[in-house]
Amino acid sequence: MTRAGVRQLLPRKIVPAALSATHRHYQTPAKDIAFVLNETLQYQKHLQKLPLQNGDSCDNDFVSMVTEAVGSFAEKELYPISETSDSVGCKQTGPSSVITPPGFKETYGMYVEQGWMGLSYPEEWGGQGMPQSLSLVTAEIIATANWAWGMFPGLSRGAINTLMGHASDELKQQYVPKLVSGEWTGTMCLTEPQCGSDLAQVKTKAEPQPDGSYKLSGTKIFISCGEHDMADNIVHCVLARLPDAPEGTKGISLFLVPKRKPSKDGSVDMKKVNGVSVGRIEDKMGCHGSPTCELIFDGAEGYLIGTPNRGLNHMFTFINTSRMGTAVQGLSASELAFQHSLWYAKDRLAMRSLSGVKNPDGPADAIIEHPDVRKMLLSMKAISEGARSMVYECALLQDELTEAEWGGDMERAKKVDDRMGFLTPILKGFLTELGVEAASTGIQVYGGHGYIKSNKQEQNLRDVRIAPVWEGTTGIQALDLLGRKVMLQKLRPFHKHIAEVYSYCFALLREGGGRNLRRHATKMLLGALEWQMLTYRIAARAASDKDSLGVASVDYLMYSGYQHMGLHWLKMEVAAEKALSSAEREQSREFYEAKVDTAQFYFDTLYPRTKSLVATMFTPTDSIMRMKPEHFSFDHAL
Amino acid sequence: MTRAGVRQLLPRKIVPAALSATHRHYQTPAKDIAFVLNETLQYQKHLQKLPLQNGDSCDNDFVSMVTEAVGSFAEKELYPISETSDSVGCKQTGPSSVITPPGFKETYGMYVEQGWMGLSYPEEWGGQGMPQSLSLVTAEIIATANWAWGMFPGLSRGAINTLMGHASDELKQQYVPKLVSGEWTGTMCLTEPQCGSDLAQVKTKAEPQPDGSYKLSGTKIFISCGEHDMADNIVHCVLARLPDAPEGTKGISLFLVPKRKPSKDGSVDMKKVNGVSVGRIEDKMGCHGSPTCELIFDGAEGYLIGTPNRGLNHMFTFINTSRMGTAVQGLSASELAFQHSLWYAKDRLAMRSLSGVKNPDGPADAIIEHPDVRKMLLSMKAISEGARSMVYECALLQDELTEAEWGGDMERAKKVDDRMGFLTPILKGFLTELGVEAASTGIQVYGGHGYIKSNKQEQNLRDVRIAPVWEGTTGIQALDLLGRKVMLQKLRPFHKHIAEVYSYCFALLREGGGRNLRRHATKMLLGALEWQMLTYRIAARAASDKDSLGVASVDYLMYSGYQHMGLHWLKMEVAAEKALSSAEREQSREFYEAKVDTAQFYFDTLYPRTKSLVATMFTPTDSIMRMKPEHFSFDHAL
Repeated sequence: MTRAGVRQLLPRKIVPAALSATHRHYQTPAKDIAFVLNETLQYQKHLQKLPLQNGDSCDNDFVSMVTEAVGSFAEKELYPISETSDSVGCKQTGPSSVITPPGFKETYGMYVEQGWMGLSYPEEWGGQGMPQSLSLVTAEIIATANWAWGMFPGLSRGAINTLMGHASDELKQQYVPKLVSGEWTGTMCLTEPQCGSDLAQVKTKAEPQPDGSYKLSGTKIFISCGEHDMADNIVHCVLARLPDAPEGTKGISLFLVPKRKPSKDGSVDMKKVNGVSVGRIEDKMGCHGSPTCELIFDGAEGYLIGTPNRGLNHMFTFINTSRMGTAVQGLSASELAFQHSLWYAKDRLAMRSLSGVKNPDGPADAIIEHPDVRKMLLSMKAISEGARSMVYECALLQDELTEAEWGGDMERAKKVDDRMGFLTPILKGFLTELGVEAASTGIQVYGGHGYIKSNKQEQNLRDVRIAPVWEGTTGIQALDLLGRKVMLQKLRPFHKHIAEVYSYCFALLREGGGRNLRRHATKMLLGALEWQMLTYRIAARAASDKDSLGVASVDYLMYSGYQHMGLHWLKMEVAAEKALSSAEREQSREFYEAKVDTAQFYFDTLYPRTKSLVATMFTPTDSIMRMKPEHFSFDHAL
Repeated sequence: MTRAGVRQLLPRKIVPAALSATHRHYQTPAKDIAFVLNETLQYQKHLQKLPLQNGDSCDNDFVSMVTEAVGSFAEKELYPISETSDSVGCKQTGPSSVITPPGFKETYGMYVEQGWMGLSYPEEWGGQGMPQSLSLVTAEIIATANWAWGMFPGLSRGAINTLMGHASDELKQQYVPKLVSGEWTGTMCLTEPQCGSDLAQVKTKAEPQPDGSYKLSGTKIFISCGEHDMADNIVHCVLARLPDAPEGTKGISLFLVPKRKPSKDGSVDMKKVNGVSVGRIEDKMGCHGSPTCELIFDGAEGYLIGTPNRGLNHMFTFINTSRMGTAVQGLSASELAFQHSLWYAKDRLAMRSLSGVKNPDGPADAIIEHPDVRKMLLSMKAISEGARSMVYECALLQDELTEAEWGGDMERAKKVDDRMGFLTPILKGFLTELGVEAASTGIQVYGGHGYIKSNKQEQNLRDVRIAPVWEGTTGIQALDLLGRKVMLQKLRPFHKHIAEVYSYCFALLREGGGRNLRRHATKMLLGALEWQMLTYRIAARAASDKDSLGVASVDYLMYSGYQHMGLHWLKMEVAAEKALSSAEREQSREFYEAKVDTAQFYFDTLYPRTKSLVATMFTPTDSIMRMKPEHFSFDHAL
């Protein structure tokens, strides 16, 4: 997408008046995106440090053009088809054909034609050479408008990153450009009927062939976008076992299995299909626009990606891309719930405010005047905006990682990777749990009308309910965080994070600042100290009581999430206070004041949830583990 | 249902082996029901004190016969049709015809034929004269097996109670026996398009006719079971305004509007319909088996129930019946989630236990061995069993209230009514919120399989998500509790409750008891003290800051719920410890030990949630109310 290209898309603006009548509506939070990027996270400075291709032409103006153009596409094209995405869903019409909901294919065609898929990939692979962070911003905008639709390009991104990271040059040459252009899409094939979280049980077999290829056989389930009509070819990234592979996770290799084998010129014969077929597509709670396939590999031709038996390690490139994408799912569910709710809460009249009539000319006051409704609205707002800042921080880290890796600075790459490794499970686990909460709150604001399908609040909850499950459940994220990222690394990335919190807060306190700012900085300081003490206490317990780690893990993850979101709210508050001191126009002042107020709300109402978590993460192991499985009930499941 | 009659139903037992294969299954928690009734709440003593009709023949044996017979009906007839209830749902086929899901009509026929509807109604009205508490026990069993189905008899119960409490003898004679037999069903018609929580805005009109009847005109929405094919007639209880009625809630009257006007002998002409038609049935998130109707009253003939302009007061008989029924919805969603999850967690193999291999012959350990999964299972278990005890306490209070009213002891009736009034919003609000949480946890235990419709965990969440909304949202319950039941009554019912907690706990501490029992009794004592202090603090704040009540209300309700559930867990622990001291058989010991362990879990893991609520209920009002409605977002809903 060139600047000129983006500009051409700009005139397509939505007409708010027409949409407001329906109360079901999505608008890009462009102002908030700009605030987080430019004022909280200093995106300009970040971009200037990046010697990425085209990074130099990615300035504030360009970012807002992209936001506006993708926003317009999301609002005008993707949001309107999200309701039929749910009500019509996907239909399987044959062993290798699945029809996506109305408008999916056409809008995907527009997306590909306009070159959005390649926005953040190198020009040598057919991309636009923009930083990856920008791609994550567009992913958020699309995810909020139509999560299911966004999964197709999202999975392709995972496949591209995996191939670019681990595949042979030959495979890259053949597959990456087609994925970058969006002509083909990608999938990740991990889960099998007998195993999801526990990939040690993977059974799919890969038989080596004389020509260096492999024949794959086995059944994979829960394969998102595993079959569809939006692209001519699908590139499956499949975990399987070589004949001589050791048992467990150390005997898993990664293979590329195309739906259709391309000829040398990259064309595919639409009449021929490699040995992959769809057993069924799942009938599920939500995300109906994204077909969840059982894929049957029956001697399908595949090609090894990377090193034999290192497949799970390679797959983590895909898994980490998806985990960040799933964190975005939490953010966007919260943003969507908030947007719908805000329209409704301003419009719906019920009862009088306890503190005096607010709408004397109407039969009642708007429900936004009632404290409990406000608490719900502010919760969704604080979650969305806090989540946005957390996700964008990781997007910037991703840029840094790519830059370090490309520049061959492996020491710096390791540092950034450690930090991302520490933050990813927190974001994936915490933000998806909060996304579910916010979506459910969105129903509550609507009252009975929230339960009605056409108002789409219930769809949002159904769509997001999978987020704390797939790409590793919250329980798995929690063990990854506390076990692998904190304990196994002897608290190194954790200590580094805590040190940064200390230094940020101390600097803030030295600078002075307003009363609230000092109060919140002190809160974060004490919070970091508490976090540190809890971590030591857990480590000490775990030495003699292995299960205590599992007992603490999910509460520890949620606790870490509230601490980390607190830091982001503090940073946003600082940015807003700074802007306020120089802001002149009234409307700008109001934006920053609202930001400061929301920070206040976060610290008063969401942050105190840590208090309970501090207690429950130390539930005595015995209290959880003592009961024998057969004593959980004497009425059933004996 | 006579003893002999119940016995005839007993042979119909389920075959656990056949059901376990599917992992989707429901069994009456009969052992737990018996424990709560007989050992925790001393049901026998309660029944002996009740001079109710047939109360004397309602002993332990009879109760377990009823539990077993209804349980068998629920397991064999209702649970199997709950999946198609969701997937097929209800279909409107004409202005006065809605077809219920497969099997609904037939099983309702069996229910009516076997006389279950009248179990707890006086013999003079065609009932069996059993105490009302017993009816609530059967309602729980049915609700867990098939919530949507249970709504039909549930709404009839509300209609019967309303008519018996407020209607003229003539109306009673004509309608109550048909409702008690189950030949006809009932509805409650409150909500209109412009108002739900705020009934002051009700617009439906009732024009008096020369013959003493009324012509009703207006549109009611969200009318559960408003039209269906399961009974020949439907008795609508409708809120409407008389021509000269004052504005607001003091100008609302209550009317009975039959779908078909019965002739003197009680027969109805199936070809004629009173002026009520169905505008549409709603397409909603869950509860598909229960048709949610828009009912259009177009000069429909109706009859005044009770006093003009006192309709809302009369309707509260219905509303309170429904609120308790909705509390049961929370309980049963939790029970169902737990039952499904327990089967799955024992069967699904994933990874090895951190504390050592538990299933050396299998490829991995059952997930019930992992602490996080156990925490989820124990949460659902503690919620279900705690909720059961809370609901049954109110069922017993209902018996006492009925007895006092029938016996003309209005002073005692007032006392019991005050206590029920205090407990009802806690149960409705808290147990439905926890029911949603438990249903969502049920999905999480299943991982990706929880998102698949055929496994029914996602259906359970969709079905129960309406519970914190209808019959007054959690926000409305919270204002009812804190505003009406605590503050407006000058803390009287609250003080009475706290005094009982004190005296119960002090007595327990005096008696000695085990270490844990003393610890939990102390916890409850300190909890009661804290609850008292919080209440005073809220009252003090509210004097000068009206909105602070609204800010605190939902957190206060949830806090009260955790306190009250704690008291019930303490009582169950006491009962189990007592039984343990005399239990001989190993299997009985195990049941009581599991109960003691679950109490321990409750106090360690769920009860500490009060810590956060104590903080957040005192969020400064300014932090919630300061932001202007137009400043909630600068991107949308301006």
